[in-house]
Amino acid sequence: MPAYDDLMAFQRVTEALSQVAGRAGWDQEAIMPRGAAPQRAEEMAALEEVLHARRTDPRLGDWLREAHAPDAVADANLREIRRSYDRNRKVPAALAAELARVTSLAQGQWAEARAAEDAAAFLPVLSEVVRLRREEAAHLAEGGDPYDALMQDYEPGGSAEDMAAMFDQMRPRLVALRQMALDGPEAPRLSGHFPKADQLKLAEQIAAAFGYDFDHGRLDLAVHPFSSGSGLDVRITTRVDEADPFNCLYSTIHEVGHACYEQGVDGAYLLTPIGNGVSMGVHESQSRSYENQMGRSEAYCGWLYGRMRDVFGDIGVGSERDFYRAVNAVHSGYIRTEADELHYNLHVMLRFDLERALIRGELDVADLEAAWNERFEADFGVAVDKPSNGFMQDVHWSVGLMGYFPTYSLGNLFAGCLMAAARADLPGLDADLAKGDPSAATGWMRDKLQRHGALRTPTETIRHATGQKPSARPLLDYLDAKFSDLYGG
Amino acid sequence: MPAYDDLMAFQRVTEALSQVAGRAGWDQEAIMPRGAAPQRAEEMAALEEVLHARRTDPRLGDWLREAHAPDAVADANLREIRRSYDRNRKVPAALAAELARVTSLAQGQWAEARAAEDAAAFLPVLSEVVRLRREEAAHLAEGGDPYDALMQDYEPGGSAEDMAAMFDQMRPRLVALRQMALDGPEAPRLSGHFPKADQLKLAEQIAAAFGYDFDHGRLDLAVHPFSSGSGLDVRITTRVDEADPFNCLYSTIHEVGHACYEQGVDGAYLLTPIGNGVSMGVHESQSRSYENQMGRSEAYCGWLYGRMRDVFGDIGVGSERDFYRAVNAVHSGYIRTEADELHYNLHVMLRFDLERALIRGELDVADLEAAWNERFEADFGVAVDKPSNGFMQDVHWSVGLMGYFPTYSLGNLFAGCLMAAARADLPGLDADLAKGDPSAATGWMRDKLQRHGALRTPTETIRHATGQKPSARPLLDYLDAKFSDLYGG
Repeated sequence: MPAYDDLMAFQRVTEALSQVAGRAGWDQEAIMPRGAAPQRAEEMAALEEVLHARRTDPRLGDWLREAHAPDAVADANLREIRRSYDRNRKVPAALAAELARVTSLAQGQWAEARAAEDAAAFLPVLSEVVRLRREEAAHLAEGGDPYDALMQDYEPGGSAEDMAAMFDQMRPRLVALRQMALDGPEAPRLSGHFPKADQLKLAEQIAAAFGYDFDHGRLDLAVHPFSSGSGLDVRITTRVDEADPFNCLYSTIHEVGHACYEQGVDGAYLLTPIGNGVSMGVHESQSRSYENQMGRSEAYCGWLYGRMRDVFGDIGVGSERDFYRAVNAVHSGYIRTEADELHYNLHVMLRFDLERALIRGELDVADLEAAWNERFEADFGVAVDKPSNGFMQDVHWSVGLMGYFPTYSLGNLFAGCLMAAARADLPGLDADLAKGDPSAATGWMRDKLQRHGALRTPTETIRHATGQKPSARPLLDYLDAKFSDLYGG
Repeated sequence: MPAYDDLMAFQRVTEALSQVAGRAGWDQEAIMPRGAAPQRAEEMAALEEVLHARRTDPRLGDWLREAHAPDAVADANLREIRRSYDRNRKVPAALAAELARVTSLAQGQWAEARAAEDAAAFLPVLSEVVRLRREEAAHLAEGGDPYDALMQDYEPGGSAEDMAAMFDQMRPRLVALRQMALDGPEAPRLSGHFPKADQLKLAEQIAAAFGYDFDHGRLDLAVHPFSSGSGLDVRITTRVDEADPFNCLYSTIHEVGHACYEQGVDGAYLLTPIGNGVSMGVHESQSRSYENQMGRSEAYCGWLYGRMRDVFGDIGVGSERDFYRAVNAVHSGYIRTEADELHYNLHVMLRFDLERALIRGELDVADLEAAWNERFEADFGVAVDKPSNGFMQDVHWSVGLMGYFPTYSLGNLFAGCLMAAARADLPGLDADLAKGDPSAATGWMRDKLQRHGALRTPTETIRHATGQKPSARPLLDYLDAKFSDLYGG
């Protein structure tokens, strides 16, 4: 099958260039000298120009027509290449270029306007981003739902209808649990001094224990922690707040979840279309399993309590149980990225409804702030005090990432399914976690899910790992049990 | 002139991609996780494929035919693009690919064979490299001298004949000075403990004082120090030996010289063919001016002596003069990169004669080690004890860098011309250096040379800066005065 071989040889170079572009992004966020920004923008645009030309190269169409898949791996490779080719060919080059230009501009304007709490300065460019993304969605949807069309970049096979059904199922139980927690006893707080170097050393040890391979990655600092790269070079970043060690530790565990997914993919898939995580939702299932389901479990918190006292001395809480309560404190805060497991999905629901309305043309950008503030007060019982605590807190919309937010909740849902299955297979899991050892669970995750990369679709990936169709029930049962124990009568 | 504009727009993307490739190389040497090497090799090959396609794109030929240069800048840009295009078109793609493959392989084999002191293990791949480079040289030379053809990649306009004449002029005076130094009093040696963190902090301060701009660069560690990048992101590396602080400090000053050249180029030339150093020889003129002519001057050593005692306490030498003698110790060592200013050019002459004979087919790879050892003993008075101290010490030949070595000596020669001119213009230079302040001289260098990038040819660049045709006399006079003072009767 020469067509398939030619296609894969061409694609391999594209994948390699895409890794280069990803690492240039890592460099920019993690270690680039400040003054290099204007040149870096040109370098990223040059790489994007090359990648776009390759992704829309007419030879891909010929090869895709002629190639036959003799096995499941080839079938999956063709599926991924076809999806990318069709997607990129549907969008006129001029529109793609305009979107790249405007979103790059918009991100800077968003950051400046947010720092100045100046919503009016942000709205014009946001309107432009929404207009262009709606135009793009119209090209992609070909008469179908425009929001669904945008979702495909992040969650292939996902739909707004499924997401809405998921949220409808989650919402009443989350709201009830949240109320119980807010009415319950106040959680203890850590106090003490947590030196940066000690936090980073502990974070490194924990990352390694969760299976992160430093021979194929590295840990650096960044303003917003992220994981980057696939295959043999998967880098993570974290941040440090000397007053709040949970920030560093749980950001690290979260990014380790993402990174272990990429590091865990079968080496035979290196630099092929299936040699990486299959979707944002499945990716987030890994980060949330590591961070929340394991890292914030009572068993692991028991171990971490002892470890933190070894490293930092007195940390202001007097028992493992109190430490567990501190880790899982429930507060009605403004900021999504600081939210507890109960509030987190409520934050996402708000964004999902608003961005869906924007893309469908049912909400004007001019009315977005008011809509946000009204909804936030209704859901969270607190009035938004300033744009940076409201609709301007996230970078996503400025860079055109509409259709992305629901994958965070989908990831939580998938994590619920996966960890319920893992716990059924691994009766000794809590005993291991109580010794600071998540390796049985991370090994389970690698074997059942991570090593397969994008071999199967997202839903099939979860079904293969768990033996069940994905559902919100395991997550809700987990949250119910955990927070009833912590806050219930 | 639409052809010129189209050409420059196309070229700008190529330049940006070339910066990306350079930074991927930096990453690989400075900070890449060990296990990422196989993937990185594919990423570098992918970038090289894209760059080679752009450098030989047939549209370049059309544009070059149609474009007219309205001014000196456009003229220089066309000169550089034409040189690259002609050069890359002359070499068959299959040969270029084979060279890339074999030299990449050979570098690893060289490193392994060198570590094992196993010359026989290195010779087959070296023969292959020499064979391919000779073949390439034949394509490039089109009947002319093959060694000259290879030199053009490193020193446009350079010729073996000119280099040989330069060495003939240098050799007798260097040999005489060297003998005087070896017969003279032994130089003092530093002793003490030089903690890594303190060395790096001092190196950073010195780098900044020499004009390195940390807002557009960064300093990291690497096994072999180097400078990388052009324009707004020029990074340097150094290494640290806790027993020998000169290793770190003078490596840093050397790389700062290279980096300041790149950082100093006029911002209007950013990402254009003239937006970088014009040749290896002119580049080396900057690193050697900074490292030797300034950094190892008696005035600067006086300041550095005090600074090092502030930082490290007792360093085992009792006066500024003894410190100056320690910095400029003359030894008949095996290793080029550790050589003093007198022996350095003798090392280069040996390599120049041997590699020229290899490329001309006058010396077989099988006879290289014997030829090296015979020549070394004749020139240095010491028998080579093992291959890593002999013909296998440098990476250059394994990666096909024949024609490169003479640019090191040319750089020393140019540095002699430049600093003689700078000293004539700046009578207070030594008084400044005695205060640890090289800014007048680095400012002179920026104004006279660095900011012009590759606007002029290498020889014209030196002539423009000094007002004189380049010659070995200033370097020889400088060495004569310095080492006669240090070691003469």
